[in-house]
Amino acid sequence: MTLNVLFSAPDMLWDQYREVLPRAIAAAGIEAKVTRSADPAMVDYIVYAPNPNLTDFAPFTKAKAVLSLFAGVDRIVGNTTLTQPLCRLVDPALAEGMVEWVTGQVLRHHLHLDRNIGAAPHWVQDAPPLARHRKVTMLGLGELGMACANMLRVLNFDVRGWSRSPKSAPFPTFHSTEGLRDALFDTDIVITLLPDTPDTRNILNAQSLQWPADGAVVINPGRGPLIDDEALLAALDAGKIAHATLDVFWKEPLPHDHPYWTHPGVTVSPHIASVSRPSSASEIVAENIRRSESGEPLLFRVDRARGY
Amino acid sequence: MTLNVLFSAPDMLWDQYREVLPRAIAAAGIEAKVTRSADPAMVDYIVYAPNPNLTDFAPFTKAKAVLSLFAGVDRIVGNTTLTQPLCRLVDPALAEGMVEWVTGQVLRHHLHLDRNIGAAPHWVQDAPPLARHRKVTMLGLGELGMACANMLRVLNFDVRGWSRSPKSAPFPTFHSTEGLRDALFDTDIVITLLPDTPDTRNILNAQSLQWPADGAVVINPGRGPLIDDEALLAALDAGKIAHATLDVFWKEPLPHDHPYWTHPGVTVSPHIASVSRPSSASEIVAENIRRSESGEPLLFRVDRARGY
Repeated sequence: MTLNVLFSAPDMLWDQYREVLPRAIAAAGIEAKVTRSADPAMVDYIVYAPNPNLTDFAPFTKAKAVLSLFAGVDRIVGNTTLTQPLCRLVDPALAEGMVEWVTGQVLRHHLHLDRNIGAAPHWVQDAPPLARHRKVTMLGLGELGMACANMLRVLNFDVRGWSRSPKSAPFPTFHSTEGLRDALFDTDIVITLLPDTPDTRNILNAQSLQWPADGAVVINPGRGPLIDDEALLAALDAGKIAHATLDVFWKEPLPHDHPYWTHPGVTVSPHIASVSRPSSASEIVAENIRRSESGEPLLFRVDRARGY
Repeated sequence: MTLNVLFSAPDMLWDQYREVLPRAIAAAGIEAKVTRSADPAMVDYIVYAPNPNLTDFAPFTKAKAVLSLFAGVDRIVGNTTLTQPLCRLVDPALAEGMVEWVTGQVLRHHLHLDRNIGAAPHWVQDAPPLARHRKVTMLGLGELGMACANMLRVLNFDVRGWSRSPKSAPFPTFHSTEGLRDALFDTDIVITLLPDTPDTRNILNAQSLQWPADGAVVINPGRGPLIDDEALLAALDAGKIAHATLDVFWKEPLPHDHPYWTHPGVTVSPHIASVSRPSSASEIVAENIRRSESGEPLLFRVDRARGY
């Protein structure tokens, strides 16, 4: 029996997946038709990325799962019409890309690389301290946060981590609202790699931005709403935070008149820290369809109560 | 018996070492006086960094060793008056700093970080390939080159290496003049971390700069003379090489009128990729004095025939 797979995502993603996704599903031994529109009552699986054409999941009465093409599902998890099992995409390539971006940005700030990029002739030999003398705090110890933190430890950075619930790691970890201050206290570089939930929203705010060392750096490859933009701009203007490198924003693309675009202490990156690679992502989606059809548990199923 | 240790190095280094070096020597159980000038015939050890006050080592008839404060000894190894044993400084902090700088620069170019540094508002989501699809060639597989190459492998880069004589490594290696083309062929990022010897001088020249992939990047944290400046500028102008990030130069500080300062495809870094840290460097110097006094072999003794 041929399964009906609805690909509900922006055009740009369809261009990337239209060939590799059917191929990956066939390679998993599943007979399926992948289409961009279908009678909702006939759809077996929904492969999904946020788009305006699908906001009501209620008519998809037969759908056995909604398979996200993204790791973050905060734009969909609160949708009350979505009662089908929901899976995040945990693509090994996603973690690789994130580790590379976070490590690159941490080293850029650690080494003050900007000083010599497009700079006027200026020979001043002020070498940075060693990484082992640089404190880095990772907010978020999920797959991506843990992978990045471990790579930074390989580079000798003095790493500590924070997560909502206790996590064990080969470096000091803190948890809960009470532990946040200890995790951030006197740190040099803060990385926010948390999901966007009511508990994490504005986690960097006027109060918590006072806890790092003076002149600390903020790097946000996680979610825009983790940061209170006004509080961050004030901390930058006060010199408390020396620089913020932001890959995600409350609204994307970042509006043209947003102060981040022109603030000398802000680097705007266009949400590219970690992007799904169609070939590896298609294999994960195909594997979840295969599992569902075989009655095996789905991979990376979202816990609605926690929101991720 | 109190040993006489002559500290022959620029003032700036004396400021950094005047307290930590005597302390490290005392901690090694050696009684010594560290001074900036002394009767040459009375000197037991010379702690040295290139400076105009000491170019003739002949009068130091009693000196048991010349202990360099730098890893590179090319400015001293050809001095025919220097007949005493010569030791390079292989400071663990030196390798750490070099690994951090090289990894940071490779990631900067790999991720195209410059695009978003000080750039005009521009939201274009062109994510780079993964590191595993990026070829990196390390020219030089000594302590520093090997340490950097291994870190780049941890980050999944597709690493290959080249050295004058055969070396075994957990990645493909090439050697000798014949192997250079294979090492550089179609590579994306070239790192030069070789000593400056007659064999390595101008190793990146008009011919060898044609072997990497079009739009490749050159990173030189090794020695200025490894690169034929005119050939590099021509390769940059032709677009064959997209960017060069240079930390070392034929003449340092880089002269104000050198075209590197203003070329848009060149980043000038003021020889800070790897600097000795006085505390850890002093321990190495002290250990070599202790070894010499106990009749044990010196650490990191230079082979004059090879030049390093």
